Amino acid sequence: MSGHFADDLTAAITDKHAPVCVGLDPSYDRLPVSIREKFGDDRAGAIREFCTEVIHAVAPIVPAVKPQIAYFEVHHAPGVELYFDMVALARAAGLIVIGDIKRGDIGSTARAYARAHLSGEKCPDAVTVNGYLGADGLEPFIEEGNAGGKGIFVLVRTSNPSGATVQDFADASGRKLYQHMAAQVAALGQDSVGSSGYSRVGAVVGATYPDEARELRSMMPEQIFLVPGYGAQGASAADCAASFKPDGTGAIVNASRSVIYAFDKNPDIDWRQAIRQAASDLAADIASAVF
Amino acid sequence: MSGHFADDLTAAITDKHAPVCVGLDPSYDRLPVSIREKFGDDRAGAIREFCTEVIHAVAPIVPAVKPQIAYFEVHHAPGVELYFDMVALARAAGLIVIGDIKRGDIGSTARAYARAHLSGEKCPDAVTVNGYLGADGLEPFIEEGNAGGKGIFVLVRTSNPSGATVQDFADASGRKLYQHMAAQVAALGQDSVGSSGYSRVGAVVGATYPDEARELRSMMPEQIFLVPGYGAQGASAADCAASFKPDGTGAIVNASRSVIYAFDKNPDIDWRQAIRQAASDLAADIASAVF
Repeated sequence: MSGHFADDLTAAITDKHAPVCVGLDPSYDRLPVSIREKFGDDRAGAIREFCTEVIHAVAPIVPAVKPQIAYFEVHHAPGVELYFDMVALARAAGLIVIGDIKRGDIGSTARAYARAHLSGEKCPDAVTVNGYLGADGLEPFIEEGNAGGKGIFVLVRTSNPSGATVQDFADASGRKLYQHMAAQVAALGQDSVGSSGYSRVGAVVGATYPDEARELRSMMPEQIFLVPGYGAQGASAADCAASFKPDGTGAIVNASRSVIYAFDKNPDIDWRQAIRQAASDLAADIASAVF
Repeated sequence: MSGHFADDLTAAITDKHAPVCVGLDPSYDRLPVSIREKFGDDRAGAIREFCTEVIHAVAPIVPAVKPQIAYFEVHHAPGVELYFDMVALARAAGLIVIGDIKRGDIGSTARAYARAHLSGEKCPDAVTVNGYLGADGLEPFIEEGNAGGKGIFVLVRTSNPSGATVQDFADASGRKLYQHMAAQVAALGQDSVGSSGYSRVGAVVGATYPDEARELRSMMPEQIFLVPGYGAQGASAADCAASFKPDGTGAIVNASRSVIYAFDKNPDIDWRQAIRQAASDLAADIASAVF
């Protein structure tokens, strides 16, 4: 590990030939029955065991995981403790960890969030952030990340249908808000470009709009794209390929439910094996479209 | 309490003749020396005592408090436990509680955040949310709030300087993003208007741009405005008055550091007394400009 998030992520993707990330979105109701039975009323315990097993199952296959903090936060303090424990466990298992927190605030409040999520031993290697409040809301995360070489992914173009009602808002020249946000992200990232050619400031760009992803790819040559929307949200591997450069670098595709709940569609084998298989299939599908 | 957030807040503001809210942004380094000495290395304990005293000091004076979760989250799980404890304590003290969480995500993730922050016994009466992801990101909070009559405040126009670099982005007709967001918020709030004439869907509108606040006031007649920017950020009571209707309803002005750290500028009296005095001065200043 070089200690520069974008360099480390780029190298790890190459090493594993897998430009993909597994999202950890643990809903108690969707856990394997065997785990729910084992833990009874101890929901946090059940989620801990499930996430631990998922992390160990996918660690040999993918370079990164993306825990979604909302699914932990819903269990209040014990859930937040579990979130940071799982971040630490995944890092110890050799995974790069992207905390999907989508925080966004300003000044000393943004600094408190940045410290909470990027500065401790149990903190992830990068987090997602929301740029609606402008650069004031992003700079504290970039500054906090400098010491540890950590990264951020700024929401530029999200994969959900109604994202367009805000992000497609267009100026007199036809330039849309998400393009305007992309230009700001590109500028903010200029000072933290590593030897890979990528910045520690990346962008979230949904796979569900491949034409826009292609255009954003050229607008943000130094940004790694974190790409949601594959699988459950309907985007194909070919759609995802629009976020990569011709050399196969520059993006990482996330899949969450289609991997961690793969046992639903594959009930005849051990649930861990179903998850491993889904992670391998994910990696192979995206790699074949990209490399 | 009627069980409708906007009605309850409007009534509480009238009862206390105080259209103001005290922000709980507890930074350990800024706590009174006496508390830091008493608790030694137990930072969470010090913050707990400080917040408890602040809540009891301001409860007779103001209708609402706004804990900023970032200052709790920076202490990870123990901080999050403290956040929810302080929310519950403030509600038990008769205060309306607005959780400043600025969460924003979509689908099942947004539902998890909404459940985490609006559905439990220790949850606040309303929370702030970020609308960059469109209505998909807001509706789960509105739905989760329906059962308990809870509210949300959507970020429309923030008080920080660089907010304009995103929120002033303008379309061909000169309409700006924050105006576009305001129209969406007004539409989303139509189905949850109470007997006060205000919706459980409110808006965050910074006091630092009073001309824009006046215009937003007419664009969002059913929204209560949560108004940051008074005091520490430079806006005057007259600036804040732009967010109110002529009858003095429709907004609540927040002040955080200028109240909870008032003892810095008033070291000759008990620190709790300094906070009470600052809360009274805040209420009187805004009330005189509004009523």
